[in-house]
Amino acid sequence: MIRDRDSQIRDCWETNAESWTTVVRAGAIASRRVATDAAIVDACAAHLPARVLDVGCGEGWLARALAERGAQVLGLDASAALVELARAAGSATYDVASYESLIADSSVAPGPWELIVCNFSLLGDPLAPTLGALASRLASNGWLLIQTVHPWIAMGDDAAYRDEWRLETFAGFGEHFAASMPWYFRTLGSWVAELGRAGLEVESLAEPCHPETGRPLSLLITAR
Amino acid sequence: MIRDRDSQIRDCWETNAESWTTVVRAGAIASRRVATDAAIVDACAAHLPARVLDVGCGEGWLARALAERGAQVLGLDASAALVELARAAGSATYDVASYESLIADSSVAPGPWELIVCNFSLLGDPLAPTLGALASRLASNGWLLIQTVHPWIAMGDDAAYRDEWRLETFAGFGEHFAASMPWYFRTLGSWVAELGRAGLEVESLAEPCHPETGRPLSLLITAR
Repeated sequence: MIRDRDSQIRDCWETNAESWTTVVRAGAIASRRVATDAAIVDACAAHLPARVLDVGCGEGWLARALAERGAQVLGLDASAALVELARAAGSATYDVASYESLIADSSVAPGPWELIVCNFSLLGDPLAPTLGALASRLASNGWLLIQTVHPWIAMGDDAAYRDEWRLETFAGFGEHFAASMPWYFRTLGSWVAELGRAGLEVESLAEPCHPETGRPLSLLITAR
Repeated sequence: MIRDRDSQIRDCWETNAESWTTVVRAGAIASRRVATDAAIVDACAAHLPARVLDVGCGEGWLARALAERGAQVLGLDASAALVELARAAGSATYDVASYESLIADSSVAPGPWELIVCNFSLLGDPLAPTLGALASRLASNGWLLIQTVHPWIAMGDDAAYRDEWRLETFAGFGEHFAASMPWYFRTLGSWVAELGRAGLEVESLAEPCHPETGRPLSLLITAR
């Protein structure tokens, strides 16, 4: 059966929910531990206190971190298993919602939100409909923060630099993951173009770096 | 004698004017020949016909290319020697003007210009005063196009990814260049930040790639 990639991505997280939660809560992903977790928390903290929507919240670590800093957070994830794990850890509110539902139904997490954050959670293509759905939920003075794999690092040594579907096997994450996940590799120019199509303006681009190598680990986009 | 870097940059181009002109007119810089020359011409062509200011025009190849496509072009360069070589080749109008003069004197090339283009010509730091001086000369519906070394390529294999002064010896350009030039390496985030400080909005980012390796050769910023 050929399933569309959005369904594959959702199913993957449902299957991998326990393994993912173990890895994240153990701090087992080096790039997150040394740089990108702090980068997204700090970027969000600059806009707190606020009503925050954490889109693709997973097991909820970021929602909890922001709630501890005084934010009122709703975490959304398409995986019911992950939302259940997030709820069990408390601190914020969580709901199951897919990107499709955010696009199709304006009554889902209607906001307006002063801050919407997507931390390594925009994995599909096209993005403009999703980004537009988020933009429509932003307060007039609100901010959208997106952290994603740095396009330069993700290019690898051999791969051409172009938008394309790739496969994440989670082989480097130390724990057994039963399901692989398609994800869309997107160039820098493509990120900016999708934001523009959604009527969003790029305010700043940050590139959190590895503290020892000095090389960028992620791209952190601030838009409004 | 310690001279400031802007003066060093200006002096370098004055000294290297003949060598540079030989190299550019022979098409001897591979990245320009295979990708970046066409990229900036095409990006400009999308906004023609227009009154165009070519800032840091050098020996004038881009001004000539745009004039051939119906633009009315004024090329500016701080090097009198390069402006003389540009004038000798015709097609557009050329004047000697430094960035300092553009910042200090609004009567220099006052415009308003429908298109301002800086092709590998923004080499100093800080940039926001220069960018602000250019923004003030843009027509209300005008565009600023900047092509620069791609920050990820210029990072090199060992260098840390951070803003810093570097030295261009022109050793890879095939012709003898008597003078080396300081230039400011700027991260992607720094480019966007300097544009923001100048009140400019990033409209798109393109990344012209090498046709064979598929790797980005330059960053092409469209702002307004």
